[in-house]
Amino acid sequence: MKQSLGRASIRPEKPVYILNSASTVGTKEGQGPLGLLFDKVGEDDMFGCATWEEAESTLQRDAVGLALEKAGVSPDDISFIFAGDLLGQSIATSFGVSSYQIPLLGVYGACSTCGESLALGTMSISGGFAGRVVCVTSSHFASAEKEFRFPLEYGNQRPLSATWTVTGSGAFVLGDEEAMTAARSWGRGCPRAQITGITLGKIVDYGLKDSMNMGACMAPAAASTLEQHFIDFGSQPDDYDKIITGDLGKVGQRVLIDLLREKNYDISVQHMDCGLEIYDAESQDTHAGGSGCGCSAVTLSAYVLKQLEERNWKKVLFLPTGALLSKTSFNEGKSVPGIAHCVVIESVRNR
Amino acid sequence: MKQSLGRASIRPEKPVYILNSASTVGTKEGQGPLGLLFDKVGEDDMFGCATWEEAESTLQRDAVGLALEKAGVSPDDISFIFAGDLLGQSIATSFGVSSYQIPLLGVYGACSTCGESLALGTMSISGGFAGRVVCVTSSHFASAEKEFRFPLEYGNQRPLSATWTVTGSGAFVLGDEEAMTAARSWGRGCPRAQITGITLGKIVDYGLKDSMNMGACMAPAAASTLEQHFIDFGSQPDDYDKIITGDLGKVGQRVLIDLLREKNYDISVQHMDCGLEIYDAESQDTHAGGSGCGCSAVTLSAYVLKQLEERNWKKVLFLPTGALLSKTSFNEGKSVPGIAHCVVIESVRNR
Repeated sequence: MKQSLGRASIRPEKPVYILNSASTVGTKEGQGPLGLLFDKVGEDDMFGCATWEEAESTLQRDAVGLALEKAGVSPDDISFIFAGDLLGQSIATSFGVSSYQIPLLGVYGACSTCGESLALGTMSISGGFAGRVVCVTSSHFASAEKEFRFPLEYGNQRPLSATWTVTGSGAFVLGDEEAMTAARSWGRGCPRAQITGITLGKIVDYGLKDSMNMGACMAPAAASTLEQHFIDFGSQPDDYDKIITGDLGKVGQRVLIDLLREKNYDISVQHMDCGLEIYDAESQDTHAGGSGCGCSAVTLSAYVLKQLEERNWKKVLFLPTGALLSKTSFNEGKSVPGIAHCVVIESVRNR
Repeated sequence: MKQSLGRASIRPEKPVYILNSASTVGTKEGQGPLGLLFDKVGEDDMFGCATWEEAESTLQRDAVGLALEKAGVSPDDISFIFAGDLLGQSIATSFGVSSYQIPLLGVYGACSTCGESLALGTMSISGGFAGRVVCVTSSHFASAEKEFRFPLEYGNQRPLSATWTVTGSGAFVLGDEEAMTAARSWGRGCPRAQITGITLGKIVDYGLKDSMNMGACMAPAAASTLEQHFIDFGSQPDDYDKIITGDLGKVGQRVLIDLLREKNYDISVQHMDCGLEIYDAESQDTHAGGSGCGCSAVTLSAYVLKQLEERNWKKVLFLPTGALLSKTSFNEGKSVPGIAHCVVIESVRNR
């Protein structure tokens, strides 16, 4: 069984389904344009916890719990969980998913982590290593500001190119044909969609150092992965109903479209960015858009998969984008390299 | 093709080989009992760089470069690289491996990361997703002290249960049958060994909070993964020449042996800990032993694989152990949960 397609791309031979998924978000996300679509909106952003990090762990725990419930399975039915977040040593994950006692594979790709976890989950199922896996990622506005930028109490000004870290977590239960058939026999409306391709990204570093303009830092990586994807799959932008980046925001979107035009790909019609969908930039004062590991994950679960279920869209490219920086690398004057991993998601007939 | 064996375990159906590997270390490791076995020992621990983080990146870059060279392949021959370290946002990895321009899958499992990367690498090859992958992990004493503990200038006292973070990086080129045959035809003495099984671990939290006694924090996770492994593979401790943990050190070793005795497994004869092998505790003042993502990786590459090549050992269990803490989680009074992933490595006849 050869499931590779070129060096960086994969076409799974065994079908891989998104059996179900769930999204949990904070109050600001609940008030945004997608607010009504999320499974759970917190009453405040502490979720009953004492610290922001614990609050983020709770977001993950709730998202996984809800996704399992919706898929009609228990933690014992899951072979492994691919999980990650933005905090140092992925600490929101460690304390978020431990109670489920599922073998854990921690992943880190900054805000591209949702794509990475779905890619690895797809491989583990199509490779015959697991019947069902869970992929979960999260971010939290306040824990991310503390980790990367300034104490909230400073009340520092944010440039217009800055994005707003999404408080949210998205969890996905992936399964093979057998798991899908079982779920159907239990009367679950499933699967939500099918994963039919992957293109993994490499680090792209244009030398940009402005951590308040992460869209521009990540756009070259998105362009690189997309170009590789079109080559490996022999496809064109209009083969997809939507080409969905994670959190490029307003600035990064322009850069991406321009960079791909230079390569003779025009994605201006199909392009959508989760960071631009999740907030109303004007009324919610989020500047360039939303960002974070949670941004693409909750938008995929709440909005994108819904469109695929309703067959408004048949086939999309989902491409979370990550900015590989830390407080230390920023303080030491390093650049902000980007990375992006791409997943092809298709609607399933006769759900 | 069903390659799972119980929920957490995998027996690869397609053979997966460690084609070659390399280790780079700092001066202290070079002066230790394994000193002569490492591929590259730095003249000092800065490796010509301006910061400790850059020094750690250089360790990774050199380890990958050497491993590729020894395997006789170029970066373009590698499908993906599984890489990670201990620093916030895995920053040593981002700046360590980017120059190779190989699609990157970032992994995080604290000091268990070497096991996680080998497990995922094995899956990607046995699943037919890649012909060759690289797995690399690193740690650096000074960057880790800065990340987790005190400024070195404090000269703080360290309790006897504390371990010493290894400055080092180990890189492994995994490949399938075809890649192995190709390497042989080029006259490379290869493969170093074969990976024949995996057991993935879950988070185990006994509620211990002493970050200066990580051996005790991680031992329960090692015991849990080992017990699961023996059950899933229907094996016993004496089926292995060595059972090799990553960095439990003196204290953790005792705890692990005791915990497994309660489950009726006696591993006291077979057990070896990389952290206890890499330094001479007395003359090098390293207290409970070595630790870090690099500890198990460089010991595997320099020492364990050598024993397998020379057929002094035929079959070992390699079980890197991780302590899932961050500065923030420690300061917020959280416990230090552990995790451990297990890889079965066997010697290959007719190399």
